[in-house]
Amino acid sequence: MSKKITVEKKVLSENDRLAADIRKKLEKQKIVTLNLVSSPGSGKTSLLERTLKELGNKFNMALIAGDVQTENDADRLKRAGGKNVRPVITGGACHLDARMVTRALDEMNLKGVDILFIENVGNLVCPSSYDLGEDMKVVLMSTTEGDDKPLKYPSMFRRSSVLIINKIDLLGLSNFDIKQAEKNARTINADLKVFEISCLKETGLEAWYDWLGNQVTSKKGKK
Amino acid sequence: MSKKITVEKKVLSENDRLAADIRKKLEKQKIVTLNLVSSPGSGKTSLLERTLKELGNKFNMALIAGDVQTENDADRLKRAGGKNVRPVITGGACHLDARMVTRALDEMNLKGVDILFIENVGNLVCPSSYDLGEDMKVVLMSTTEGDDKPLKYPSMFRRSSVLIINKIDLLGLSNFDIKQAEKNARTINADLKVFEISCLKETGLEAWYDWLGNQVTSKKGKK
Repeated sequence: MSKKITVEKKVLSENDRLAADIRKKLEKQKIVTLNLVSSPGSGKTSLLERTLKELGNKFNMALIAGDVQTENDADRLKRAGGKNVRPVITGGACHLDARMVTRALDEMNLKGVDILFIENVGNLVCPSSYDLGEDMKVVLMSTTEGDDKPLKYPSMFRRSSVLIINKIDLLGLSNFDIKQAEKNARTINADLKVFEISCLKETGLEAWYDWLGNQVTSKKGKK
Repeated sequence: MSKKITVEKKVLSENDRLAADIRKKLEKQKIVTLNLVSSPGSGKTSLLERTLKELGNKFNMALIAGDVQTENDADRLKRAGGKNVRPVITGGACHLDARMVTRALDEMNLKGVDILFIENVGNLVCPSSYDLGEDMKVVLMSTTEGDDKPLKYPSMFRRSSVLIINKIDLLGLSNFDIKQAEKNARTINADLKVFEISCLKETGLEAWYDWLGNQVTSKKGKK
């Protein structure tokens, strides 16, 4: 048992070392880097599609789209106007790790990029343990998932800086209580910045776009 | 690297050995055992609540409710009439394993039990790799998740025998195409038995109850 723990520790340290290298590299180029995490089907790809369409002419955006199998998400992002999209197929692994991101970045052109989105594998547990060198994790949940998810999967909500509640157009059609969901999330992490949106109906997205713009301005302003 | 693979192999073999013991024990007692797997929020607990209410007087049901944190699901199952409910908090682990199930079963009274439901952690990746000694895995997906989930998370759909598509009351309110979802699922696993249901509106559940009853009859009939 002690042997197993030792090995896991070593793997994590290797990940942390690579993530620190990624962070240094992206910081130098003043690229805002967001690691999007959620259950499968909460709307990570839909949010990125909307963001590409709305901000594609304003900001230079690069995207890494992680999935266990298929390049479906990367294809959707390209169709939405993404010109710098890199699929990463994990081939069974339940999360992206810093090694996968390092390899992807090595093959991408980062010159002039303002924002790098890393769309993680749909999984509310494992990706929380892997630093990818991001500025912050953005966790999505949708109104069809149950408002107690932050309590049941606390690590992901604790390690995220932003919570996006998607599919608010479906509020009232299930037992989901959005106030309770936010209360549960803040019990785990009082500092969460929360957005309530619907990608399908394009509601609530202006605040998200404004926030993104502020992140870019703030990063560029840094010496 | 080779060292890491060796350790993982050893852990999996240990799980398989424990799962075989569980299977033997439950088979001897002629208990139909189903391992419920899905993304967080697809409706595993809701399905079990409905099933307890409808079949609670007909069959003796035992339930193991796995979660990363909280006993919320176990509490819901008890409120729905579950008299033999055992919560398992994984404390961070992204799946149940055979050791956790062995421990839970040791503390449960299995005398006269017809059906054992094991509600796994909400995660469409990792639980697919862990045999819990079940007769079969039952995978749930909901109509709000995206119809390409079987292609993106193939292992879970390949290793399941039953697919339950929940929240059909929300069909038409998103881009989810149920025919395409089933086609995708059958591309991965042609033998899947499919049920289309809504736990909230209580539609499509009769076929599921009938199927469950047939599983019990079939198991009891075995010498």
